[in-house]
Amino acid sequence: MLYLIGIGLWDARDITLKGLDVVKRCTRVYRESYTSRLSASVSDLEHTYGKKIILADRSLVENGEEILNHAENEDTALLIIGDVFAATTHLDLMLRARERGIEVRTIFNASVLTAVGVTGLELYKFGRVTSIPFLNANVSSPIDVYKSNKKSGLHTLFLFDLDPQKNKYLTIADACTYLLEHKVSAKTQAIGCAGLGSDSPEIRYAQLSTLKSLTFHLLPQCLIIPGTLHFMEEEALKRYKGL
Amino acid sequence: MLYLIGIGLWDARDITLKGLDVVKRCTRVYRESYTSRLSASVSDLEHTYGKKIILADRSLVENGEEILNHAENEDTALLIIGDVFAATTHLDLMLRARERGIEVRTIFNASVLTAVGVTGLELYKFGRVTSIPFLNANVSSPIDVYKSNKKSGLHTLFLFDLDPQKNKYLTIADACTYLLEHKVSAKTQAIGCAGLGSDSPEIRYAQLSTLKSLTFHLLPQCLIIPGTLHFMEEEALKRYKGL
Repeated sequence: MLYLIGIGLWDARDITLKGLDVVKRCTRVYRESYTSRLSASVSDLEHTYGKKIILADRSLVENGEEILNHAENEDTALLIIGDVFAATTHLDLMLRARERGIEVRTIFNASVLTAVGVTGLELYKFGRVTSIPFLNANVSSPIDVYKSNKKSGLHTLFLFDLDPQKNKYLTIADACTYLLEHKVSAKTQAIGCAGLGSDSPEIRYAQLSTLKSLTFHLLPQCLIIPGTLHFMEEEALKRYKGL
Repeated sequence: MLYLIGIGLWDARDITLKGLDVVKRCTRVYRESYTSRLSASVSDLEHTYGKKIILADRSLVENGEEILNHAENEDTALLIIGDVFAATTHLDLMLRARERGIEVRTIFNASVLTAVGVTGLELYKFGRVTSIPFLNANVSSPIDVYKSNKKSGLHTLFLFDLDPQKNKYLTIADACTYLLEHKVSAKTQAIGCAGLGSDSPEIRYAQLSTLKSLTFHLLPQCLIIPGTLHFMEEEALKRYKGL
């Protein structure tokens, strides 16, 4: 049996009781290391879960053989930062497991896609989500997604590219640079979020030109450009202005 | 201090370790009773959490005084089905707490908005989410949202209206009826999902006219009309066809 287990956004205590029950009974536990960044180290997780954890990089998960060979015979867990299906590779692994007749069970957890609700923006009013690539990539689709959402009055969540193995994380400042370079107005109001899921997330609401020079300490980070605001959303955002 | 704690989608063991730590230290614990349906009863939760739970209906949360008066002086938790900010009322409560100088902390959890990834549809390709009202309501905005998503090739997730106090839940069959009455073609392929978060969620992929007459046993339910499908999404959906 293969268990795909979301472990949430921040630390070792973000796993669910159900997730931990399963981890304890698996004979092998992997943790993917490339779709996001957890504040907890592998040894933090090992300490809290009482279980040895094998770090699985992109090639190990994409190749899949090692994990699936084990899951064919024994209870095997793959721990995934955030919720389980935010990344396509985990869907691919599920499909290949099923092809081989391996039963797959999913244990959900928090995702940045709904945690952004803490800003006060209504989740119902988000359009399609998009990702900003590292600055050397010349991709314009995030801008297309933003324009299309904007036209419908919808909020746009920009997630950021990352390369945890090289400790490379795109920042809010990088994202602002990217948007400005792609002709998004410097006066556009946006919300920078860092460390969602922590006790003290950093959330700031300002024009892109200002946001670009503010300091955010936590990782991972993301950015939202709000669409048409309801008065309650405006009210909520006031708290994050002028800091 | 007011803690807003997501408790996930299905049973008492879907709470996170962090959420349970906080529940144990609060002197009063409410559980909202009107935004979704949990399979666990209040006494299941009390048993697992080791804590007395007060059921909070919509008026208690919307009025807010009782909860906020308590939170002003003591650690108070409001348990929320799914993730915390899917419903506007919880945002409103957070704002009013802050107005009164009450510190608010949020503990995230799984939401149907990302759990739908288990169908094999990519979360990146969902457009705006919408809700289908009970059949006596004459609201056309779900259709507008669907049409707009469809035009962009995006998936549309339809959540369903519910009234847990009257044990009234809109079903996949009701949603199909609603869509057909609003001139969505009977041949439109859609995915019915029931009991996401359970060990054996019911997922079926068929034309609306077929889906309407299939039996789903679990609650809550939702429906997805996929947009343009990537081959991996097609592959994943095959599993749910012809059942």
